[in-house]
Amino acid sequence: MPGVPDPNRRSDATRRAILTAAIDLLGEVGYPKLTIEGIARTAGVGKQTIYRWWASKGSLIFEAFLAFAGDGETAALPDTGDLAADLKLVLRATVDELDDPRYDKAMRAMHVEIVNDHLLAGEYVARLEKPMRELKKERLRAAQRVGQLAEDVELEVAIDMLFGPVLNRWLQRTGPLTHDYVDQVVDTALRGLKPRKP
Amino acid sequence: MPGVPDPNRRSDATRRAILTAAIDLLGEVGYPKLTIEGIARTAGVGKQTIYRWWASKGSLIFEAFLAFAGDGETAALPDTGDLAADLKLVLRATVDELDDPRYDKAMRAMHVEIVNDHLLAGEYVARLEKPMRELKKERLRAAQRVGQLAEDVELEVAIDMLFGPVLNRWLQRTGPLTHDYVDQVVDTALRGLKPRKP
Repeated sequence: MPGVPDPNRRSDATRRAILTAAIDLLGEVGYPKLTIEGIARTAGVGKQTIYRWWASKGSLIFEAFLAFAGDGETAALPDTGDLAADLKLVLRATVDELDDPRYDKAMRAMHVEIVNDHLLAGEYVARLEKPMRELKKERLRAAQRVGQLAEDVELEVAIDMLFGPVLNRWLQRTGPLTHDYVDQVVDTALRGLKPRKP
Repeated sequence: MPGVPDPNRRSDATRRAILTAAIDLLGEVGYPKLTIEGIARTAGVGKQTIYRWWASKGSLIFEAFLAFAGDGETAALPDTGDLAADLKLVLRATVDELDDPRYDKAMRAMHVEIVNDHLLAGEYVARLEKPMRELKKERLRAAQRVGQLAEDVELEVAIDMLFGPVLNRWLQRTGPLTHDYVDQVVDTALRGLKPRKP
């Protein structure tokens, strides 16, 4: 019936408004001061609307982060035929993303929730970490096929060694996150992962 | 003067009681439900006593963790002459520590604070991360001297690759933390860090 608003569409728009408000407010006030009240006010909805959809600040923040980071838009890693160059490209892009204060704050907020919440951590692994890991594995398998990575490398561990250090340094603030640093990580890790010369 | 209590000693005992209460209560109720009120009650002191020494729950938790983990007791890494075996020993011990719920909860609480607080992160690096990193570097330098590690390895990056994956997997809960896993990390990392055969 024309003229009658679609309740599903309206509620989608409200959800999106709430998720956007959460990220915006987070960027302004930081995670410790972020409240459901504040998000409701910013989104122009009642607190009860938020509680109808999310059980806690943690689950709201988690979904806001997924939406912000582009849920479901996970793309394959580049494959130019040069594994080291492709890995450096991806990790440099990660460093650039983390340099954006909105992204930095949203990702820190999500991590705080994961650190303390088993269930949310499981959702994070299932919805974000595992799909990303599969794409990384595919790129490493392609490198194995063309002889740029040894056949007997444990791919799970290789991924942890290549992608873990950047995340750690960012999370713990143990050193500057630069393109130089990620280049060194890739070069150092790949020394041992390349096939041995006969 | 005998019989007159030493105010410094008394205040040391009170501090220790507060730090212990913080760790005990954390183990019971978890970080999100931990309050200064609860810690004061458990320690048998007034809230004002706590606020006199610590500006926030974060700085109290941080010091409680340092005391619990043995502040200043950082010991050199074992050196049996076999780098791989020594690294596995240290990392297996870390896995065992993190398997203790009290240690796990205290370390998670400290990380939550570090993730959101620049100043506390700086203190963490200065008081815990950097001294530990120096000890790791010393062990790697000894391995370089006896030809078990290549001369041109960037030690900072090598440390991130050897010790980062365990921390990551624990913090993000991306997989089981086992002795097998840390053995694989050490073996995979060292493949590339050993001197090349001439």
